[in-house]
Amino acid sequence: MLIEDRLKDLKAKIDAKVPAGIKVSEVEFEGPELVIYTDDPKKFADEADLIKILARELRKRIVVRPNILEDPEIAADKVNNVVPEDAGITDLFFDPDTGEVLIEAEKPGVVIGKNGTTLRDITKEIGWTPKVVRTPPIESSTVKQTRQYLRAVKDERKEFLRTIGRRIHRDITSKDKWLRVTTLGCCREVGRAAFLMSTPESKILIDCGEKPGNNDGYPYLYVPEIYPLNSLDAVVITHAHLDHCALVPLLYKYGYEGPVYSTPATRDLSVMLQLDYLDVVANETSKVPYSSKEVQQYLKHSITLNYGSVTDIAPDVKLTYHNAGHILGSAIAHFHVGDGLYNIAFTGDFNYAKSRLFGPATSQFPRLEAVFMESTYGGSNDMQPSRKDAEEKLYEAVNDTVNRGGKIIIPAFAVGRSQEVMLALEEGMRLEKIPKVKVYLDGMIKEATAIHTTYPEYLNPDLRKLIFQDGMNPFLADCFEQVDSSSKRGDIIGSGDPCVIITTSGMLNGGPVMEYLYGLAQDEKNMLIFVGYQADGTTGRRIQKGWKEIPLGRRETININLEIKTVDGFSGHSDRKQLMAYVNHLNPRPEKIFTIHGDEKSAIDLASSIYKRYKIETHAPRNLETYRMV
Amino acid sequence: MLIEDRLKDLKAKIDAKVPAGIKVSEVEFEGPELVIYTDDPKKFADEADLIKILARELRKRIVVRPNILEDPEIAADKVNNVVPEDAGITDLFFDPDTGEVLIEAEKPGVVIGKNGTTLRDITKEIGWTPKVVRTPPIESSTVKQTRQYLRAVKDERKEFLRTIGRRIHRDITSKDKWLRVTTLGCCREVGRAAFLMSTPESKILIDCGEKPGNNDGYPYLYVPEIYPLNSLDAVVITHAHLDHCALVPLLYKYGYEGPVYSTPATRDLSVMLQLDYLDVVANETSKVPYSSKEVQQYLKHSITLNYGSVTDIAPDVKLTYHNAGHILGSAIAHFHVGDGLYNIAFTGDFNYAKSRLFGPATSQFPRLEAVFMESTYGGSNDMQPSRKDAEEKLYEAVNDTVNRGGKIIIPAFAVGRSQEVMLALEEGMRLEKIPKVKVYLDGMIKEATAIHTTYPEYLNPDLRKLIFQDGMNPFLADCFEQVDSSSKRGDIIGSGDPCVIITTSGMLNGGPVMEYLYGLAQDEKNMLIFVGYQADGTTGRRIQKGWKEIPLGRRETININLEIKTVDGFSGHSDRKQLMAYVNHLNPRPEKIFTIHGDEKSAIDLASSIYKRYKIETHAPRNLETYRMV
Repeated sequence: MLIEDRLKDLKAKIDAKVPAGIKVSEVEFEGPELVIYTDDPKKFADEADLIKILARELRKRIVVRPNILEDPEIAADKVNNVVPEDAGITDLFFDPDTGEVLIEAEKPGVVIGKNGTTLRDITKEIGWTPKVVRTPPIESSTVKQTRQYLRAVKDERKEFLRTIGRRIHRDITSKDKWLRVTTLGCCREVGRAAFLMSTPESKILIDCGEKPGNNDGYPYLYVPEIYPLNSLDAVVITHAHLDHCALVPLLYKYGYEGPVYSTPATRDLSVMLQLDYLDVVANETSKVPYSSKEVQQYLKHSITLNYGSVTDIAPDVKLTYHNAGHILGSAIAHFHVGDGLYNIAFTGDFNYAKSRLFGPATSQFPRLEAVFMESTYGGSNDMQPSRKDAEEKLYEAVNDTVNRGGKIIIPAFAVGRSQEVMLALEEGMRLEKIPKVKVYLDGMIKEATAIHTTYPEYLNPDLRKLIFQDGMNPFLADCFEQVDSSSKRGDIIGSGDPCVIITTSGMLNGGPVMEYLYGLAQDEKNMLIFVGYQADGTTGRRIQKGWKEIPLGRRETININLEIKTVDGFSGHSDRKQLMAYVNHLNPRPEKIFTIHGDEKSAIDLASSIYKRYKIETHAPRNLETYRMV
Repeated sequence: MLIEDRLKDLKAKIDAKVPAGIKVSEVEFEGPELVIYTDDPKKFADEADLIKILARELRKRIVVRPNILEDPEIAADKVNNVVPEDAGITDLFFDPDTGEVLIEAEKPGVVIGKNGTTLRDITKEIGWTPKVVRTPPIESSTVKQTRQYLRAVKDERKEFLRTIGRRIHRDITSKDKWLRVTTLGCCREVGRAAFLMSTPESKILIDCGEKPGNNDGYPYLYVPEIYPLNSLDAVVITHAHLDHCALVPLLYKYGYEGPVYSTPATRDLSVMLQLDYLDVVANETSKVPYSSKEVQQYLKHSITLNYGSVTDIAPDVKLTYHNAGHILGSAIAHFHVGDGLYNIAFTGDFNYAKSRLFGPATSQFPRLEAVFMESTYGGSNDMQPSRKDAEEKLYEAVNDTVNRGGKIIIPAFAVGRSQEVMLALEEGMRLEKIPKVKVYLDGMIKEATAIHTTYPEYLNPDLRKLIFQDGMNPFLADCFEQVDSSSKRGDIIGSGDPCVIITTSGMLNGGPVMEYLYGLAQDEKNMLIFVGYQADGTTGRRIQKGWKEIPLGRRETININLEIKTVDGFSGHSDRKQLMAYVNHLNPRPEKIFTIHGDEKSAIDLASSIYKRYKIETHAPRNLETYRMV
């Protein structure tokens, strides 16, 4: 069927359902959504469950949009006129993808008005649907710039979304029915995640990361399966860590023009980390894989989905994201392929334990035949202590070092581990388990924290309550201080005061941590605490193994005299016990499990244990293989 | 290194080895060979072992060629002048690929002359290297036309071989080392053989056949791995049966311009069968996948290799063909990948028993890590009777039918099974085990037999001796009579005399056999004898299963009243016992065996038995999977 005929068909079906008095002017695919244009969006909204009923009957994600949306600049003026000044509006973000305007205000209640009167006035005036949120307590420049950029390219984006919308809803032409997964990275290794999922109709790339500690550590992107790049229907990111998304912009350099799906938080975090990655790589090798222009291209082509939203991303593939508990916005990507043909989930990195920041990863799915599951801590001995024990051990290490007048370096991923450690240290000082010393945050950590406060809906209920109901935001505690310059680093290193430094990169492959190590490694009073996984080939792993001399650049070496400690238990990954428990709780029980994203031993060990314990067919694939699912 | 520099380099090395007095004018890659041009080819040839030494040191296949080759027409005149008329020259084939002239004569001894004098005179006169063979006892129009065509396109071919030669000998650029095999057909099924073997440097397609009994039965040629088709370095055919090579010409329709490797006999047989296939498909569906033009393209791009010749076909891949014992020219394709990286063999169809026509398949290889092995008769109950028992059973069936005045239809592949049955029937009549009745040959069987007599070097020593030393050519026996027309078929069907009809197609999916069945199936005096494997979905399999009504075209049906017999044991395939024995005798023992080209049950059963008995890792792959070898 021609796409125009299909749209006519859909319009007829919608007309038949819509009560008299509401006129549907047009329906159009925009990205994964079916947009209903009307002069009466308000009446539409008043009809209880009408949109839900249409969505269920047409099996589409439905958005209702007024025919004419007020120009954002004029609309902004109108909003500011209607809302009393003491609401403290800090940002207005008009999102043409959804027809919503996000109103950030210090007093959201004032924007809403008594019984929602002010909000109704806004809608009447501007057509855009207002969504009110509390102004994030820490301003994120990434979020600000992302929104600015998306505003600037809104016309191009509208065009892009229409093109993609029509592509997603094209007819299915092949008689064959099959599903294949090709492993392009992160098999029997940690890092450079990349999978190609293909059917006779469509091709989807899942993650596209770098391998830490390895400058050539790209996935096998040169194999013919993914060419031409525009034959890909979608790129789907599970979370923002660089080993899962660093090379997404590279795809645009080589001609990809299609969409990249992620959660909103993952989009913002990944842009931040990609730009930082370019700086780090430029410093180290003077050869960057792409430029900030390609990061913009990625942003322009990004489509964000919230947890639980079932979304068509190809004629025969629906994607649903579920909480993975690993970092902010991290998701398990669940694909429903064909009309009931097959269901497959890619966990990405996930944590099946509750952490200070997040709830445990989802284990319940409507249907599930196969799972590609991480196995970073999949080895039979890869047990992690409890979060409580880990924190006790961290407190002890901090006490020891501070008491002898030393400084503590904690290398950490900017996103995830840093915030967990911050929360633990803040509570330790508040409850006087450790002395009150400065906690310096270097690298992207403050910015990453700001993004956390922009997306409070991803945090677990306890932390949300603490921040928003109890008015106690631990991220804003006095002990934390941001470091922005090399001279400030010099001051900290030179000062006689004990302190804690949380800094990137988490595996000591570049970043400001190297300056601290250079300045503090000689003194045995100081301490280096590993709180995260150190991949093979990284400086972090070498120091963990006991290397006493670490090369810095081409000429210098750093002598490692400071004390080295590894505090396990802060991980954003499930440990062995949790991985096995996760499989046990998976509902429904899948037919096949593939253990990926783990050292060779861990992946094989986990696969074999799952098979023995649960009698599920398992594989520990190697890179460059293709598995036929159905 | 630029290819020109590499050639200079090779020339310098050759110059250093060649004795004074012999001048090398030029060296050039032509297809897989390194050609040394010289004014003194004779002197070159006189230096004992010089070419062998160069070949070993340079690790190249070396051909020495005079700077100027006499124009073939003038050279032909000269040969005819030098050779006495009573030699009975029947053909001269000047092959510019090798610089040889093939002289077919009824009395080869006369062409050679006393102590080789005449031969030396020829060489002196024309520069071409003469190779003398006895005129085949049955003239093959396919061979004649093939040679004519290759003569006509010799300039294009020379250009093509230079291009391919330079491509084969390009530099290796990738640092990665891996080997993958992707299954594109014939996995857990019989038919549509096709495998893609790929490394970071090169891509090779092995076989490209159709699935009998299935008009859409193509391999999965639409997957992205093999595109663009010109990214393939080579297509390698194991043997001429259509389920291994029917769709090779289709590749040229879709833009492939590279070489197709096969043995010389496979090239001629496959061209014959492809042209016949086009006729059969046109009759049945009026929609042919390609035309005879693409068969010509295939021929123009074919490169033939004899058993045992180690040949560069890509910068990192050497191909060697070994006898497979299945049909004329059938080969096991052995690939040496990288410089000692990996060795992998694709058996194609093979027979590990000695047959009337061929010796048993090769089981000895210099190195061997993995084998893709057919499993047509891989099920634990797939035992075939001995050839002797099979022949006794055939004789019994013939006797029964002839005695009751009936006719016998034996559907058979034109190539292989037909000749085996012909030899058995001829001997049966000669030794008076069965009555002397006419044996009609219909379809391509006579032509296929002619090609057998053109390539006697592929036949086993006993048969060669019978034909060439004892002067007894069983293929020429009086009992055999060719059928060329529908009217003759009518005469045979209408006549009251008992007879045997060997006819194509072997699985009753079209071909003249359908006319005989239509005419003879009603009469229960007649008999239909299956001597070969009947694939699922073919009419043959249906009749074997006991169907009593067979649709013919859209309107008619054939009622099956004649007696149905299956005489196992004439197979060109190894049976279960032989497959296991083959694995046992493989030397060296491979690390991995993949059972392919067999029904699902057979492939899995064989894989599991090999693993249990020999502790070799086995897989019964499915189509569309990719296995990482190293």
